[in-house]
Amino acid sequence: MAEKRQLKLGVSIRGLGYHAGGWRHPDVPSGGAMDFEHFVNVARIAEAAKLDMVFLADGVGIRQKDEPPGSLCRSNQNVELEPITLLSALAAVTKHIGLVATASTTYNEPYHLARKFGSLDHISKGRAGWNLVTSWSDAEAFNFGREHQMAYADRYERAMEFAEVVTGLWDSWEGGAFVHDKTSGVFYDPDRLHTLAHRGKHFSVLGPLSVDRTPQGRPIIVQAGASDQGRDIAARFADIVFSAEQDLAAARAYYASVKGRLATHGRRTDELLMLPGLVPIVGATRAEAQAKHEALQELIDPLVGLSYIYGNFGDLSAYPIDGPVPEPKDPKLRSRAAVMFNLAQEKGYTIRQLCQAIASGRGHRTVIGTPADIADTMEEWVDQGAADGFNIIPTHLPVGLEDFAALVLPELRRRGIFREEYEARTFRGNLGLPEPQNRYTEARGQGTALSA
Amino acid sequence: MAEKRQLKLGVSIRGLGYHAGGWRHPDVPSGGAMDFEHFVNVARIAEAAKLDMVFLADGVGIRQKDEPPGSLCRSNQNVELEPITLLSALAAVTKHIGLVATASTTYNEPYHLARKFGSLDHISKGRAGWNLVTSWSDAEAFNFGREHQMAYADRYERAMEFAEVVTGLWDSWEGGAFVHDKTSGVFYDPDRLHTLAHRGKHFSVLGPLSVDRTPQGRPIIVQAGASDQGRDIAARFADIVFSAEQDLAAARAYYASVKGRLATHGRRTDELLMLPGLVPIVGATRAEAQAKHEALQELIDPLVGLSYIYGNFGDLSAYPIDGPVPEPKDPKLRSRAAVMFNLAQEKGYTIRQLCQAIASGRGHRTVIGTPADIADTMEEWVDQGAADGFNIIPTHLPVGLEDFAALVLPELRRRGIFREEYEARTFRGNLGLPEPQNRYTEARGQGTALSA
Repeated sequence: MAEKRQLKLGVSIRGLGYHAGGWRHPDVPSGGAMDFEHFVNVARIAEAAKLDMVFLADGVGIRQKDEPPGSLCRSNQNVELEPITLLSALAAVTKHIGLVATASTTYNEPYHLARKFGSLDHISKGRAGWNLVTSWSDAEAFNFGREHQMAYADRYERAMEFAEVVTGLWDSWEGGAFVHDKTSGVFYDPDRLHTLAHRGKHFSVLGPLSVDRTPQGRPIIVQAGASDQGRDIAARFADIVFSAEQDLAAARAYYASVKGRLATHGRRTDELLMLPGLVPIVGATRAEAQAKHEALQELIDPLVGLSYIYGNFGDLSAYPIDGPVPEPKDPKLRSRAAVMFNLAQEKGYTIRQLCQAIASGRGHRTVIGTPADIADTMEEWVDQGAADGFNIIPTHLPVGLEDFAALVLPELRRRGIFREEYEARTFRGNLGLPEPQNRYTEARGQGTALSA
Repeated sequence: MAEKRQLKLGVSIRGLGYHAGGWRHPDVPSGGAMDFEHFVNVARIAEAAKLDMVFLADGVGIRQKDEPPGSLCRSNQNVELEPITLLSALAAVTKHIGLVATASTTYNEPYHLARKFGSLDHISKGRAGWNLVTSWSDAEAFNFGREHQMAYADRYERAMEFAEVVTGLWDSWEGGAFVHDKTSGVFYDPDRLHTLAHRGKHFSVLGPLSVDRTPQGRPIIVQAGASDQGRDIAARFADIVFSAEQDLAAARAYYASVKGRLATHGRRTDELLMLPGLVPIVGATRAEAQAKHEALQELIDPLVGLSYIYGNFGDLSAYPIDGPVPEPKDPKLRSRAAVMFNLAQEKGYTIRQLCQAIASGRGHRTVIGTPADIADTMEEWVDQGAADGFNIIPTHLPVGLEDFAALVLPELRRRGIFREEYEARTFRGNLGLPEPQNRYTEARGQGTALSA
């Protein structure tokens, strides 16, 4: 019998989970975002579950628009530990799981990032990953000497060159360069050291990098941009694409589009894994799962809920929260609010119910049901060519992850589509991805001397 | 009996130690610079010894001048893990010791650094320190889009403003800002959140920082600049000054100069600790210590030794290494080489011996002798007003640190001038330094709500 195709699974561990009311759940440590022990707990649960990676999204600023007034201090999206620093500490207390940190190409220097992720790969013995993003908000721009966010095209052009420099720096040292021969006094083989000497539009970086070739050859690169330029960066550099897709047909089209671009860069379709986000809300029965979801929805503070529709409706805080959704009066808002207003009319939503519906999924596909329901959706997406696995987005931590591990993973294992044990020593190995050759070693036509 | 003044002691753990031949010592793990386990071992030795801190110097580039030819690949100053990443991982496997990472104000953004060190302080539960430096080499400038290093005055002006922004961002949240009240839905008290809105010559940074007030109030700041501007930065911002002083009289003058500037900034003289570097080479007898030193000197590769005098003499690799030091012929070099040439004449040094003499100390005071000899020097410097303690610079790791801990520390403890156990829960507490107030809390005339 042919072995079944194995799902690759990550988990997003940002803050206290993704649900807008999650921090108020009785089992959530509400101070967890600044508490290392909270993340140790979450990472250990994920590793015990044999997941491929923990994933940290990030931004470099706090959105300070308190709209409607009084809503901001009721949201938990305010403080978070810097991801590379956090994952490096987690590297010391985990052994197998991949560690993916988001870092922006917009307000960083490629030399610094290449060095940090290279260091994390050494410290973790081959488990580092970089989620390559651009920064699109003014709130972030204001922290880095800019009056506005960088224009879209510039941002992506810079991101592409940034990735060229970082991957170039990671090839500074060929495998086996360091001989450390105490007798002869030779520390490294100078023929295996290479100076990048990059000169481009956005960056001039000489190199070499002061970090040896890493245990994975180079850290895993994750990319999440859905735009045309984002897809090009993914096809050229990424090992994993993390996307937000609600709809199977759209997810299939996106999957085909990114995979279709790989050949241009001399890559096979199995050299990149597509992992859309998935919010599972699981119960032993569908009724139990629905009850869990409703309990979370009730925890969304009304002002926080209203902040999710503020951009469409303006300030509705003077209206009764359990009353009908008013027709938008401001002509500037009318077209933006139309879809939501029609949804509310159609479903008979109150203001609270509309807010809850919008705040719930945060753009990712949410599946509420039994372990079999969730496993069915996952299998369907993989079988239909929409995914190679998923990045699980827990509603609240650690509970949402514990539920997934306790209820859904046994079902996936019963179906033979998720591992019982880690197969390899590195993150890349567990993903089943090939180790990239050093470009200079490749040019000589030699295999690497590296044992990862 | 009045309690004796206690020494504060750190240890520099960069790479494999500071001695140019150290990596070739039989007991040194020559691949240690990229091996996390090497640093875990060193940090645990330092913590078992109850030292105040491990200290990581840093640069952001590899000096690529291979002078004389073939010397560079024989030096071990090539690769090192990025310090914040490394110390964050060490935070997870240590409990008491301070963790100080060097980070440059020249090629970083203050928002990133404030966030990383703030995160490290949370992760380590109050043990983070930032060694604030400027980057002076062209080799580093080339990695960050510059044709040359930044001019001295610009570098220090930028460093001062950088420190203003970082310390300002660290005050974004007052103690007790996060109430996490699940019942009312209030996550933080908006009156305790502050937006820096810095606009200066080098930086515009809005804030606030996405990291809560840290366990130490703010991370410890270390400064090492001996220049006039460096002393001003130290007097205004630093908790510790780490200096390279060979001579007692000069060290006393430097100590008095920095301490004398504190009052201008409303600080008491005991609010800043002066810790000069000290290279101890210790044996049970003076003869044993001398033998240890000579064994290390013999391990300096001749080409590496010649690289230490290349800037003064040019390439001497064609001369017999055990022959006399030739008189410099190049008129451009003659004045720069004069002091060294005269030293060689006076002492009867061969080329090898001259190189060994120059390469040995690396600018720091070296004491070769018994535990009592080293303790005597330390006490003399403290009693004479030249130091509040020392940053120990081991010749090679872990051996140089193990020797210091096994031989010198018992002597210091016998004299009652170094701790038996850690006294406090934070790095700042063990240093005996006061917790800085948040500027906004201070302005209200309230104490902090923080329990550090």
